[in-house]
Amino acid sequence: MLDRTIAAIQPADSAAMRAARELHARLTKPAGSLGELEELSIRLAGLAGACPPPLPTPGAVAVFAGDHGVHAQGVTPWPQEVTAQMVANFLAGGAVVNAFARQAGVGVTVVDVGVAVALEPADGLLIRKVRAGTRDLAVEPALTREEAVAALTVGIEVAGKLVDDGAKILLTGDMGIANTTPAAALIAVFTGADPAEVTGRGTGVDDPTHSLKVSVVRAGLERHTPSPDDPIGALAAVGGLEHAAIAGYLLGAAARRVPVVLDGVIAASAALVAAALAPDAVAAMVAGHRSAEPGATVALAHLGLNPLVDLGLRLGEGTGALLALPIVTSAVRVLHEVATFDSAGVSEK
Amino acid sequence: MLDRTIAAIQPADSAAMRAARELHARLTKPAGSLGELEELSIRLAGLAGACPPPLPTPGAVAVFAGDHGVHAQGVTPWPQEVTAQMVANFLAGGAVVNAFARQAGVGVTVVDVGVAVALEPADGLLIRKVRAGTRDLAVEPALTREEAVAALTVGIEVAGKLVDDGAKILLTGDMGIANTTPAAALIAVFTGADPAEVTGRGTGVDDPTHSLKVSVVRAGLERHTPSPDDPIGALAAVGGLEHAAIAGYLLGAAARRVPVVLDGVIAASAALVAAALAPDAVAAMVAGHRSAEPGATVALAHLGLNPLVDLGLRLGEGTGALLALPIVTSAVRVLHEVATFDSAGVSEK
Repeated sequence: MLDRTIAAIQPADSAAMRAARELHARLTKPAGSLGELEELSIRLAGLAGACPPPLPTPGAVAVFAGDHGVHAQGVTPWPQEVTAQMVANFLAGGAVVNAFARQAGVGVTVVDVGVAVALEPADGLLIRKVRAGTRDLAVEPALTREEAVAALTVGIEVAGKLVDDGAKILLTGDMGIANTTPAAALIAVFTGADPAEVTGRGTGVDDPTHSLKVSVVRAGLERHTPSPDDPIGALAAVGGLEHAAIAGYLLGAAARRVPVVLDGVIAASAALVAAALAPDAVAAMVAGHRSAEPGATVALAHLGLNPLVDLGLRLGEGTGALLALPIVTSAVRVLHEVATFDSAGVSEK
Repeated sequence: MLDRTIAAIQPADSAAMRAARELHARLTKPAGSLGELEELSIRLAGLAGACPPPLPTPGAVAVFAGDHGVHAQGVTPWPQEVTAQMVANFLAGGAVVNAFARQAGVGVTVVDVGVAVALEPADGLLIRKVRAGTRDLAVEPALTREEAVAALTVGIEVAGKLVDDGAKILLTGDMGIANTTPAAALIAVFTGADPAEVTGRGTGVDDPTHSLKVSVVRAGLERHTPSPDDPIGALAAVGGLEHAAIAGYLLGAAARRVPVVLDGVIAASAALVAAALAPDAVAAMVAGHRSAEPGATVALAHLGLNPLVDLGLRLGEGTGALLALPIVTSAVRVLHEVATFDSAGVSEK
């Protein structure tokens, strides 16, 4: 399924992009006055192969949850059990992602791709556990290649299911105590940045823990020598199950020509994996926000994506993607609804 | 009415702000992980004098329209008639502000506070014309003090009407060919910045027109020597009717303890006037976005406001304020809906 999905990903349609650019020039506003919204709407026309592209409504957010063997290294002060507790909070509707999703009219699907403990079946929960948390990347590869491919496949399947169920835009979400550590490692691999540049404070760790986290990332890279030329090998060596699933979800969205809004640093690291597997997949990606995690900025720059929201968020869950969603909708709506100079009888300069 | 409105504006309620800060610490998310949204929600609690503050739904946007005598100096390539043509476009629902307002569920009210030509009565249009465009600030004061006060009063009345009609948040909008020229002049007066620093390209003027615009602003300031200590005098000398009305609208919102989202550079210049008349009015203001106009950034910094959206927009009409509105709502919604660590059974670090 991974190979089929990658093969289905097409480059953006340049004729639709040109049509969107020409339409923008005729709408009742000074040329370029909608700034980055114009570029975004043109990109989405290219993805859809149509001008205007479809309105991205309704949306769906998938929150991929997993645990991390590297938690044992002390990279975070939060206990591992919080991953499962927050999954319960998502399913009860009490987390920030739920509040933002209700506002946006977006459904929340939680995907257990690797939570350490067994979860009870529940409405809104897909149990697709590849294994009960990764191994500790500081001492051994986090995943086998087969496990990495299985998690990628979970993400592809979830994207397909949400699109089949009617979603016109997908949003990424994640939950996994310690998951900014593998994200930093992946970003270092795929961008060539030093671990110190891309390892952040996650939920807000203190200086000693941050130093430890940098050294754990560095040691993991030295131990496994992952290469950007072998994306699945790198994902297996230093990644995470939710990172892999999100990479698959991005590929699945791109294969269906449906835009997908990246949340924070976990999504940005997964996007690097997806782009390494299928460079044209970037055409489907919209950077929702600039996370406070430094690695997110490095990863988005590497992908050539400009974040829509920049408010110092570092929560994850899909919250930054949900904040950006109305902006994406507005960008597309302009091409659907705004009058032209001719039709409105407005003089040009 | 202006004096009564100014007298009604109270400082933010520090007890409500403290309560919001304490509530944030108990919600199921790492402390501070919502970045600037947390500060925004705390400010809005202070404005309302309540934690949580009311959800800012529904909103209402008022688009204040006016013309400018300084158009005669050639500061823009657009003909003056476009102001009235765009008002017609707003009333027909064909402009970008209409598309964004429909998405946000926000009503659009157009206020003719000084369009050069007579407008026919229409649904959604308030005719409150103080005069048919300003005088040319390059050769004489744009307004008399009485006209400036009359336009301020229009804005206060519109804010009061929209709040009486049920709006829980107000948004600013503007339309007026050449109106970035008086905005630059006002920003130079109230921030002390040089005209070259705060005069932008408006709808996208070329280099010679931009140079001319800077020199027109500079000449206006030299001719009238407006002082920040006499805000109404400065507004009359180098301002505009929509600038004055928006300043009144901001004061009216603050007096009613209703938040008001600033759109672009016109609103930012009006906010400086409002803050000079009533410093506590700033507590009601939310900077919607960072306009591409350089003066907007200078003005917002002077007011101590951080814009929520930064996407290179320079359209006006209220479009930047509307893009920011869902973010404001999200910030407040967190305080209403998110579970606490205790209630959700989530462990703390």
